Amino acid sequence: MPHQTHLREAIRLAAEHSSGGRNGPFGAVVVKDEVVVGRGWNRVVETADPTAHAEVTALRDASANLGTHDLTGGVIYCSCEPCPMCLSAIYWARIRKVVFSATAEDAAAAGFDDFRILEEMGLDWPERTVEGTQELRAEGQKVLKAWKENPKKIQY
Amino acid sequence: MPHQTHLREAIRLAAEHSSGGRNGPFGAVVVKDEVVVGRGWNRVVETADPTAHAEVTALRDASANLGTHDLTGGVIYCSCEPCPMCLSAIYWARIRKVVFSATAEDAAAAGFDDFRILEEMGLDWPERTVEGTQELRAEGQKVLKAWKENPKKIQY
Repeated sequence: MPHQTHLREAIRLAAEHSSGGRNGPFGAVVVKDEVVVGRGWNRVVETADPTAHAEVTALRDASANLGTHDLTGGVIYCSCEPCPMCLSAIYWARIRKVVFSATAEDAAAAGFDDFRILEEMGLDWPERTVEGTQELRAEGQKVLKAWKENPKKIQY
Repeated sequence: MPHQTHLREAIRLAAEHSSGGRNGPFGAVVVKDEVVVGRGWNRVVETADPTAHAEVTALRDASANLGTHDLTGGVIYCSCEPCPMCLSAIYWARIRKVVFSATAEDAAAAGFDDFRILEEMGLDWPERTVEGTQELRAEGQKVLKAWKENPKKIQY
């Protein structure tokens, strides 16, 4: 089955790049029209980038290769269920199909606490462990309004 | 107030880089020990990168400048309330304080539909608009287990 071949490639990337212990054990592959257009693996420690999860790096690779942020029609294969950051990134990339192998429970068992972040997403600011303060709203709104009224804007 | 200076810098970045219509109207600044260590603005269209939101680019800039993915003790100032991808990235960067200007409601009014993504975070796969399929779990688990047992692993 072709889609299992892509999923196994994501798992292979996870294994290959994490065996040294420096990168986390996650891999991802983006496929469009049956062709692999992007590959990624966890590079958080290696590249000193907290956002360099496998899915994010695969989406960035695919977007760079295709020259667009819009990956409509693409499928992402992940060695593990995406964390909230990566799942949100998948939405922003307009990918509507995710195939994954290990689950978020399996990631938690290995020490990756995606659930806490997911839980916090559902809370209001006062209940979150991250402190959130809102100030100067009118000044921020002004920029958004200028954008909305800008005839040259490119919606993404 | 120094923190309003930082917030205004985030708003300034948002205005400056979005006025041409190519980049979205969002800016962010990361501060550590009262010093600006990272700046970012929305570059999704410009760089063909669906993950290049202001907060993500500011976190990447700060991490690159400091040489670490761990921004513990940092504060992020955002021209607008972070979307779920950016808020998750903030958690992963271990930042525990967010100051923002415009709200998610203001962003929605300008055409940025963060709420839909936030809503989907709270759903199980069958209810999401993104299709999720889980396969080959044992093969994915194997990589996570190997990582957990690897004495050389660097937890992030």
